[in-house]
Amino acid sequence: TAVLAGDALQALAFEVLASAAPHADPSVVVEAVGDLSRACGSRQLVGGQVDDLAVAARVAAGVPPHPAGEDAASRIESIHARKSAALIAASISGGARFAPGARPEDVARLQRFGEGVGVAFQIADDLIDRDDEEPCSLVGVLGVESAAKRAEALLTDALNEIAALDERAEPLRDLARFAVRRQA
Amino acid sequence: TAVLAGDALQALAFEVLASAAPHADPSVVVEAVGDLSRACGSRQLVGGQVDDLAVAARVAAGVPPHPAGEDAASRIESIHARKSAALIAASISGGARFAPGARPEDVARLQRFGEGVGVAFQIADDLIDRDDEEPCSLVGVLGVESAAKRAEALLTDALNEIAALDERAEPLRDLARFAVRRQA
Repeated sequence: TAVLAGDALQALAFEVLASAAPHADPSVVVEAVGDLSRACGSRQLVGGQVDDLAVAARVAAGVPPHPAGEDAASRIESIHARKSAALIAASISGGARFAPGARPEDVARLQRFGEGVGVAFQIADDLIDRDDEEPCSLVGVLGVESAAKRAEALLTDALNEIAALDERAEPLRDLARFAVRRQA
Repeated sequence: TAVLAGDALQALAFEVLASAAPHADPSVVVEAVGDLSRACGSRQLVGGQVDDLAVAARVAAGVPPHPAGEDAASRIESIHARKSAALIAASISGGARFAPGARPEDVARLQRFGEGVGVAFQIADDLIDRDDEEPCSLVGVLGVESAAKRAEALLTDALNEIAALDERAEPLRDLARFAVRRQA
């Protein structure tokens, strides 16, 4: 039933987008459908989850979570980027697309903002859990201090992406700071 | 991994539709996205599957598959209509939508054609299996002869829906006859 609920909710996301059509430019709706479908698909969310499970399978099989000679931190960030950040970024840039007069460069900046905040959010989550045994955590690979620095650097870069937006972007900035700096 | 493959393939269906945009009217793409999302969602495919599982759960719990006083045949057809026929119908009418100059009444006829063929296809499947123990089968409730008659009646109605289409619809008619009359 949980799997079916997930299937239904995924379909509902596209139904909601399609229902925006009477009020929105249909070509913008189609772009948002494309963004969301790519973010949920095999190259992003599902791909990240598959790689995450592959790491867990290595641990279950008694081999090191990350192959020797591989940059484990980059691999973990890539999993975070696909599994967590892609959907966050598509949700933010998807919303921006519907703003009347949205400029492509602003949509692209909000996309990069969402990608950075998404990865930093996942690192913050792992910092709160402090679970050194979690094989897909930057905290385990880099240590608490370096992982916290990495999250803060991603947040700074993300905020810089949307520095030119006016004070109406402040709630988005607050949300980003909260997602990355929350303690629980 | 199988669940994730399903998630990825559902997303891919919408990605494929969105990628039709450069060659198709975006408002038609949005209509097709709406059709497909409704066909896959809680009121159609997922809802039918949930009801199907509920019947199986009744059997597992040792109670009759269908509540006393309920029209079991109607309930089973409703499950077939949602679980099997909705996606078949959305695929057929969705394809028709993209035809240049497609008339709404023809799209609606092809939608009803797909719904009827979809239910008849499911009855044919149960006739091939001859599994009288399957609680969600018209064969079990009506018997072989009546179930076969019902499938044939649905096929006749479906073919009547598209009787006015010219000989280019013949492959679609052949497909419907094959789906309902195949013996294996």
